[in-house]
Amino acid sequence: MKKYNVAILGATGAVGQEFLNLIEERNFPFANLKMLASKRSAGKKLQFMGKEYTVEEATEDSFKDVQIALFAGGGASKVFAPAAVKAGAVVIDNSSTFRMDPEVPLVVPEVNPEAISKHKGIIANPNCSTIIMLMALKPLYDISKIKRVVVSTYQAVSGGGKEAMAELEQQVDDIVNGREVTANILPGAALNKHYQIAFNLIPQIDVFQDNLYTKEEMKMVNETKKIFDDPDIRVTATTVRVPVYRSHAESVNIEFEDEVSVEAARKAIDAFPGAVVKDNTDEQEYPMPLFTSGKDDVEVGRIRKDYSCENALNLWCCGDQIRKGAALNALQIAEYMIQHDMIK
Amino acid sequence: MKKYNVAILGATGAVGQEFLNLIEERNFPFANLKMLASKRSAGKKLQFMGKEYTVEEATEDSFKDVQIALFAGGGASKVFAPAAVKAGAVVIDNSSTFRMDPEVPLVVPEVNPEAISKHKGIIANPNCSTIIMLMALKPLYDISKIKRVVVSTYQAVSGGGKEAMAELEQQVDDIVNGREVTANILPGAALNKHYQIAFNLIPQIDVFQDNLYTKEEMKMVNETKKIFDDPDIRVTATTVRVPVYRSHAESVNIEFEDEVSVEAARKAIDAFPGAVVKDNTDEQEYPMPLFTSGKDDVEVGRIRKDYSCENALNLWCCGDQIRKGAALNALQIAEYMIQHDMIK
Repeated sequence: MKKYNVAILGATGAVGQEFLNLIEERNFPFANLKMLASKRSAGKKLQFMGKEYTVEEATEDSFKDVQIALFAGGGASKVFAPAAVKAGAVVIDNSSTFRMDPEVPLVVPEVNPEAISKHKGIIANPNCSTIIMLMALKPLYDISKIKRVVVSTYQAVSGGGKEAMAELEQQVDDIVNGREVTANILPGAALNKHYQIAFNLIPQIDVFQDNLYTKEEMKMVNETKKIFDDPDIRVTATTVRVPVYRSHAESVNIEFEDEVSVEAARKAIDAFPGAVVKDNTDEQEYPMPLFTSGKDDVEVGRIRKDYSCENALNLWCCGDQIRKGAALNALQIAEYMIQHDMIK
Repeated sequence: MKKYNVAILGATGAVGQEFLNLIEERNFPFANLKMLASKRSAGKKLQFMGKEYTVEEATEDSFKDVQIALFAGGGASKVFAPAAVKAGAVVIDNSSTFRMDPEVPLVVPEVNPEAISKHKGIIANPNCSTIIMLMALKPLYDISKIKRVVVSTYQAVSGGGKEAMAELEQQVDDIVNGREVTANILPGAALNKHYQIAFNLIPQIDVFQDNLYTKEEMKMVNETKKIFDDPDIRVTATTVRVPVYRSHAESVNIEFEDEVSVEAARKAIDAFPGAVVKDNTDEQEYPMPLFTSGKDDVEVGRIRKDYSCENALNLWCCGDQIRKGAALNALQIAEYMIQHDMIK
């Protein structure tokens, strides 16, 4: 099997670490592997598949001979993606930088793989909440066009990175041991004010826009249109951080053009690769973030007719934010390109 | 000031204890106070306002000379409400037993106080999530008729009683100390299966109905129609338990008959007694359950135009489940009746 030179930008973060887990787990065909990060992490040693790697500081010259560059996300993408493309690499970028760029495909491999072939060096990985929602919506969309979606999210702290996960753990530890609780990361490390997430909910993810929505909420609106290649699909979102470690959950109300029965919805979702129906009210079975963490599949349940609207359903879905919501989806894009011999 | 003989049924539970806190805090004009509970709690001593009370086992004979009977909720209501009414008391009942009975007013005093006068001995306190949502919706409904509501809840463990609160605490303590975690209460003590709530979400509150909704979800649908006295208002709900101690939060999407601007909505909510607007995106101000716990007001924020639907808004509200969601609302009903000389 052909093997590829891979670089991971942000190798020491939560998504970067998951890239490594998945590369090993999925036997991803890598030849050389470069671990890149910011200056702060450069020099760190990482053990991976029996070998020690030294994290290198990412520079514009880091991508010589790299064929696949997996970018874990963040502001570095803007600087290094053009450099990596120039060096001949395909960049699969988990940041929001290029997602709405009309020249850049925005891809969930199970949903719109056909978009990949249009790439010009960069392929964008969608927002985690968008990916998880679309894994539930795509099989339904294939039954009937979707007119409108009202979604409320319950997002794990992993979306705020390793630091946010550590902060939740620290806050809980402080509370249990009667110490004062501090908050320095959520709702966003770069923001002015921070709030305790332990035993709390923060209805802000990312910064606010002029239209009073957060950037996260507008990502769900705009990315859904782009991935479905359907400018008419209407989405409204409320995104909320919850004290859960790593799986996101979403309450989704969907209005269809035609009727979609609960039975048809269940059947379609279960037949869809990467999605699993967990929906048995008699047995109290439904998706819960504690039990989807570390798993690849997005679980969908609580599928039921919405009696308040014609041709509408409610559902509840859960997926691991770091896996399908980030690293797994990106790696699946790379795997698709390898299978279709799209990597030079 | 006239004083009244009061009995509290379920005095040792979470809502019962909050009745006591509020009676003291609000100088509720009580003469004699009877603490009633099940056999299991009978004999317990309770300190209240410098006096010791002995909890008595509730029997059908417990309500002699009682004028106001505050029922904290649960199955006991069905047995004892008729007995209390027969003895001449007005029963304000926090259970779901009588809520949909056409003979029983279902009341949020700020929303439909006019219903109180139709009582025949029992007045029902609505479901906690319904109360908190309607405190945000009523001022908006007064601007324009509401056509449809899509609500997703984020409900605190206090809704499962003292035992559920203690279980979350225990689970977190076990996790922090590396002990095995057990689950015996949520999603409902009487159910067959129980799930960990710490760092998890449980999309089931109360039992499932044949239509695949939970009883909790259908309470929000049906109680809203009754309280607004509007059979045409359409509501669809997804109710979810979250690892928060005592305040509920709700993401509410509202479709109006006429346009309601964000500004008009804010103004109306702020002018409404018992509701407060907390909505300043520049200052990262919005309702959070950690900060509404122990407070009387329902806080409303994240008010914004829904661009996916004509004449629609999104909002986010938080309120203390044990206070406005239960004990406070019930006590406000009693206070209204006292003010209007409706208690014999």
